[in-house]
Amino acid sequence: LPGDWRHGVDADAIESKLREDPQHQIKAVGVVHNETSTGVASNVAALRKAMDRSGHPALLMVDTISSLASIDYRHDDWGVDVGIGGSQKGLMLPPGLGFNAISEKALAASKSARMPRSYWDWQAMLANNKNGLFPYTPATNLLYGLRESLAMLHEEGLDNVLRRHRRHGEATRAAVRAWRLEVLCLNPAEYSSSSTSVVLPPGQNADELRKLILEQFNMSLGNGLGRLAGKVFRIGHLGDFNDLMLAGTLSGIEMGLELAGVPHHKGGVQAALDSLAEAAKGAHADAAQVHG
Amino acid sequence: LPGDWRHGVDADAIESKLREDPQHQIKAVGVVHNETSTGVASNVAALRKAMDRSGHPALLMVDTISSLASIDYRHDDWGVDVGIGGSQKGLMLPPGLGFNAISEKALAASKSARMPRSYWDWQAMLANNKNGLFPYTPATNLLYGLRESLAMLHEEGLDNVLRRHRRHGEATRAAVRAWRLEVLCLNPAEYSSSSTSVVLPPGQNADELRKLILEQFNMSLGNGLGRLAGKVFRIGHLGDFNDLMLAGTLSGIEMGLELAGVPHHKGGVQAALDSLAEAAKGAHADAAQVHG
Amino acid sequence: LPGDWRHGVDADAIESKLREDPQHQIKAVGVVHNETSTGVASNVAALRKAMDRSGHPALLMVDTISSLASIDYRHDDWGVDVGIGGSQKGLMLPPGLGFNAISEKALAASKSARMPRSYWDWQAMLANNKNGLFPYTPATNLLYGLRESLAMLHEEGLDNVLRRHRRHGEATRAAVRAWRLEVLCLNPAEYSSSSTSVVLPPGQNADELRKLILEQFNMSLGNGLGRLAGKVFRIGHLGDFNDLMLAGTLSGIEMGLELAGVPHHKGGVQAALDSLAEAAKGAHADAAQVHG
Amino acid sequence: LPGDWRHGVDADAIESKLREDPQHQIKAVGVVHNETSTGVASNVAALRKAMDRSGHPALLMVDTISSLASIDYRHDDWGVDVGIGGSQKGLMLPPGLGFNAISEKALAASKSARMPRSYWDWQAMLANNKNGLFPYTPATNLLYGLRESLAMLHEEGLDNVLRRHRRHGEATRAAVRAWRLEVLCLNPAEYSSSSTSVVLPPGQNADELRKLILEQFNMSLGNGLGRLAGKVFRIGHLGDFNDLMLAGTLSGIEMGLELAGVPHHKGGVQAALDSLAEAAKGAHADAAQVHG
Repeated sequence: LPGDWRHGVDADAIESKLREDPQHQIKAVGVVHNETSTGVASNVAALRKAMDRSGHPALLMVDTISSLASIDYRHDDWGVDVGIGGSQKGLMLPPGLGFNAISEKALAASKSARMPRSYWDWQAMLANNKNGLFPYTPATNLLYGLRESLAMLHEEGLDNVLRRHRRHGEATRAAVRAWRLEVLCLNPAEYSSSSTSVVLPPGQNADELRKLILEQFNMSLGNGLGRLAGKVFRIGHLGDFNDLMLAGTLSGIEMGLELAGVPHHKGGVQAALDSLAEAAKGAHADAAQVHG
Repeated sequence: LPGDWRHGVDADAIESKLREDPQHQIKAVGVVHNETSTGVASNVAALRKAMDRSGHPALLMVDTISSLASIDYRHDDWGVDVGIGGSQKGLMLPPGLGFNAISEKALAASKSARMPRSYWDWQAMLANNKNGLFPYTPATNLLYGLRESLAMLHEEGLDNVLRRHRRHGEATRAAVRAWRLEVLCLNPAEYSSSSTSVVLPPGQNADELRKLILEQFNMSLGNGLGRLAGKVFRIGHLGDFNDLMLAGTLSGIEMGLELAGVPHHKGGVQAALDSLAEAAKGAHADAAQVHG
Repeated sequence: LPGDWRHGVDADAIESKLREDPQHQIKAVGVVHNETSTGVASNVAALRKAMDRSGHPALLMVDTISSLASIDYRHDDWGVDVGIGGSQKGLMLPPGLGFNAISEKALAASKSARMPRSYWDWQAMLANNKNGLFPYTPATNLLYGLRESLAMLHEEGLDNVLRRHRRHGEATRAAVRAWRLEVLCLNPAEYSSSSTSVVLPPGQNADELRKLILEQFNMSLGNGLGRLAGKVFRIGHLGDFNDLMLAGTLSGIEMGLELAGVPHHKGGVQAALDSLAEAAKGAHADAAQVHG
Repeated sequence: LPGDWRHGVDADAIESKLREDPQHQIKAVGVVHNETSTGVASNVAALRKAMDRSGHPALLMVDTISSLASIDYRHDDWGVDVGIGGSQKGLMLPPGLGFNAISEKALAASKSARMPRSYWDWQAMLANNKNGLFPYTPATNLLYGLRESLAMLHEEGLDNVLRRHRRHGEATRAAVRAWRLEVLCLNPAEYSSSSTSVVLPPGQNADELRKLILEQFNMSLGNGLGRLAGKVFRIGHLGDFNDLMLAGTLSGIEMGLELAGVPHHKGGVQAALDSLAEAAKGAHADAAQVHG
């Protein structure tokens, strides 16, 4: 189902599509929870409800790679059948580990399916994991890293981790607005807390801006993909990241816009600082109320 | 010779003092090149000239700990007899290595001196170093680190390193001025390129501000020492440090001032970004001229 | 083509099999260069010749995972179509990188093939690699590691690396013989230089021996796989490994045999030391002759 | 008090010396607990008793650098006044931390003493440590390392750590005896558990042997110091060290003796393995008795 790249998954459209499939030819609905390239986070819970309404038995498969441990994701509550995660984003590790969370329904489907598969061939993994082993040589170093990153997430508290990512998304968008640039995502309910895609004014080359910022400030921003190539740059704000790293990031962009001659207003960093300071005050007020 | 903690070494006063010592009771003049606690960098070359004018044979001993590899220091050109450096500042290493650069005159004085000494007992070190050895167990790990940090300094180019530190000092002072706070150092010719001490308005507690910033933003600022305790905080901007790290640092301070209720004006970070962007433009213009 | 697990690939048998396939139903001959589980290294060059004699166009696919950079392997000289390597053995890195070396013939076959594939879908990788990119998130950290491990291999010299592995294989087998235990591999021409599988006397449990050695000496030996389970243990001697590490390894085994009550003769470590010292003398004599 | 370099401290001689000093000109008795260069461990408890018998108030100062956390040392029980340790031996860290354990008596003496001092000027350290601070820039990285190395020592259990060092000392001497070489230390009650100095036959050059072993096996042995230069080499067996590392170490020496043409008997490694295996059996028997 093609979208416009500026909105999340259309649950109603999927419901309709499923209703048009009484023979259940459709085996699965696959969605990306947080679409890194556009900075749009889809409402998976709403999609689940739409699928339930349709009465269609298709599996729900969700890519959580850039949302896991940074945007709220609830595998069981939302009735996801296959959740796919990776080590290199919210889990703060190098790339190299992939995770599959599987429902009983997905497991049963996997047993009766006849298509060849490779990454999603779970039987050997399940059989070996029972004894603490792997069917293939595992990336042992990353498993040690995972133990530590999970400890770090628990130490901060997952709620605080998610709140921090929301705070950084808001401050980033405050900066973009102050620059009078456009956030690619058009639906505020679908703003991503882990990355923000920014649209440059027509005629401006986002890749030249990115190149200048990389050379001048040693900071690598994400590029626009596919039809967005050259028109968009992406700001990642997830994982092992804090308020001052965000301020440094946005500072590099604001100076880059200036040096590249991209039409914009100053004050983006200031707006982000105001947003962050406001959030800090709110958190203090909350804490005071709890203790008061 | 007591100073006012807001100016560098007074070369004329030292010259006078030396002239008042015809018996040469004074054995050495010891100065700190860059005084970390105040953010004042003394003019060592001028001091050397004043000492020469006095005709007094005292040794010139210079502490370069927070200036080495961040503020221009010229051991031979300036006729320094003993230069003292450490690994943990501009050399970007953990603490653990100390360096002594010694003139022939200092070495001769050391041989005839009769006071007990420990760190400054150079004979065993010189004898062993001839064969590539140390008289005591050396901090081998740090020596490997030193090899790498020297390679990094050469890769960037020492001139660029010094220029980068000057740029960061200027941007930091631009922020302080925009906040309408006071730079402790009163003489612009003696501004430090590696650290800036900032005076809070009367009645404000710098240590409470530092505590709030540490807790809220995980950033540790230097405290005021001695008579400056509680009145001053210090911003370090040296070593493995770049424009965006400085922007993040100043952002943490600006938000901290806001959250701590310290009277100030906004716009410090903005002023620093303007200063840094201006410097970047200048560098580009210079490069264009070279290539033009 | 089933084997007896104690010999390498039978080139004549493969030639016969290919001759029995005039319709070219067989698309590829797949062999493991060094079979880790048995410690048998097959003669790939001989296999290539046998395939050529048969006139059959099947591809030759070789798993070099435990031979690359430890046993001589010549992709082009031997006319291999697909060579498969990994980061975690002779390249001395953590697991996480896989390599495919592909002939033009394999590439052409890949384009016309219609079976689904995943790891062996080379088009996206080739297209991206042209610009120095990857189609997916690469394991960047391991690529840095690879740069260093290749530098280490070149520094030692690949010929010396291979010679070192041969020396360690010989010394290991000298120990096994002195213990009066049996090397699993029956054909001396196929002895592995990177790992040795050792057969315990009937009635002895290799896994109990391995467990004792792990607990007592903190050394983990490889287990027998499949039909060899419990009957065999495996000694790895490849990668970042030297004479004294081998001596320590064999010492742990000799003490483990004693503590586990496995019938054996002492003197295995002594035999290995004699073998290693003899090799060192030979190398010195060679060097002397070169310089003489 | 000069010794013969092959025995520990002579408690009776020190007692006599102290009795000959009724004016208490002697301020302190300084001993090295484990003399690294000779592999002799002195009996500090006996020395304490001898000092007590003399009635002399001299301080007892003990260098524990190569014994701390590898040979039993009891600061309080033995009435030591100043104990000196370092990070780089039994504590398994890089060099860079020094420790002083001080008795009340030493502290009082320090306050009334008038000699200049530097490392042993404890007042500033004590004053700052009360608040968790240091008077000078501390080697922070090593303090983190110390936290981990202490955790490792507790995890193994200090008794087990000391027992392991004794076991390695015994196995090393078993090897030396089998080689028919001489242990420098002549008194079995004073054998060091952390290092062993080995005397070569007359006419043999220990430094050439050491050089050959370094080049051939990448293993660096300690050299003879002072009057022992060229006659002795030293085997360290302390810190993060286990049975197989010792076996590898002794293997390198046995092969080195062979390659260097030093007259010796083979079988040193075998003797060490027998000693280690015997110790392992004993430990198992003990454990069985405890559980039986």
